[in-house]
Amino acid sequence: MPPLPRRPRPPEPFDVGLVEVFTGNGKGKTSAALGVVMRAAGHGLRVHIVYFMKGEYPYGEQPILDSLPNVSYSRFGFTEFCDPDNVSDAEREQGKKALLAARAAMLSGKYDLVVLDEVNVAASWKLIDVADVISLIKEKPAKVELILTGRGADPGVIELADLVTEMVKVKHPYDRGVLSRKGFDF
Amino acid sequence: MPPLPRRPRPPEPFDVGLVEVFTGNGKGKTSAALGVVMRAAGHGLRVHIVYFMKGEYPYGEQPILDSLPNVSYSRFGFTEFCDPDNVSDAEREQGKKALLAARAAMLSGKYDLVVLDEVNVAASWKLIDVADVISLIKEKPAKVELILTGRGADPGVIELADLVTEMVKVKHPYDRGVLSRKGFDF
Repeated sequence: MPPLPRRPRPPEPFDVGLVEVFTGNGKGKTSAALGVVMRAAGHGLRVHIVYFMKGEYPYGEQPILDSLPNVSYSRFGFTEFCDPDNVSDAEREQGKKALLAARAAMLSGKYDLVVLDEVNVAASWKLIDVADVISLIKEKPAKVELILTGRGADPGVIELADLVTEMVKVKHPYDRGVLSRKGFDF
Repeated sequence: MPPLPRRPRPPEPFDVGLVEVFTGNGKGKTSAALGVVMRAAGHGLRVHIVYFMKGEYPYGEQPILDSLPNVSYSRFGFTEFCDPDNVSDAEREQGKKALLAARAAMLSGKYDLVVLDEVNVAASWKLIDVADVISLIKEKPAKVELILTGRGADPGVIELADLVTEMVKVKHPYDRGVLSRKGFDF
């Protein structure tokens, strides 16, 4: 394999917030956003996470998020998974509320990092209008870092993003019948 | 875009530990591992992280890891980045110690999740012998979850893994001269 590039050093201090997208069909999109949240919190930055599609489900990270300084979150959607072929008015209403919460957090001046968890899925399943996501990105204050997660990121979102990683599934235990496991997958 | 598959529900409890690999040239590999650590800690699982190549560098996650219940880590390598074309004996010595620490943690019975951070890079840069990584994976106790991160995962490692995600760089601000930023990238 070719030599790997050295990472640039020394790092720059935080000066300008970027738009980051974690998309693709592999495991690691929300996890990567949570890792960035951990780092940001460790450096004293202020973080808000908007969960677009996770309702009241007891995700493992939440007690930890509750314990982190300067980290808050708001959750929308329902506990039962959404059926993309049969989206309900109630689900669209939750999507609308999540978008409002995202915009309010981003524009509040209270957060250095805002994570829109599963926003790409919410848009591709039409719980929300992707045009509203694009407007939101265009309104981002310069200092705020914005992370959008979820498979199926819209090309318009990718176009506006500064950093895009596609998490590609090379192997996944779902394929041999292992379901998602408490502690590691949620 | 085609309809997205629904995630299998309900989830199974943690019963068998898998081998997960986060590799590729995009951002999100160590971040994803940290996200899994956050979830595991939130569910009360016991975690140890072995940093193969991060020395004393003040990574943002570390004060947070220090605050998490049941999470510990050990760090190897040096603060200055390694030159893959000119690996020193001291760096190989650090690699050897990191592997010993990884094996001890994995076999100790004290951890449900062991993360080998940047182990793939350490192997591809010959700080450690990939055959030793493969032996380590083969010795994994059934109940332990093992996560290996870093670009350039060896095909032998991928072959043994249960879950492999390749983080593919679609866009990265390095490409337009933005260096890594405190709070979001380290």
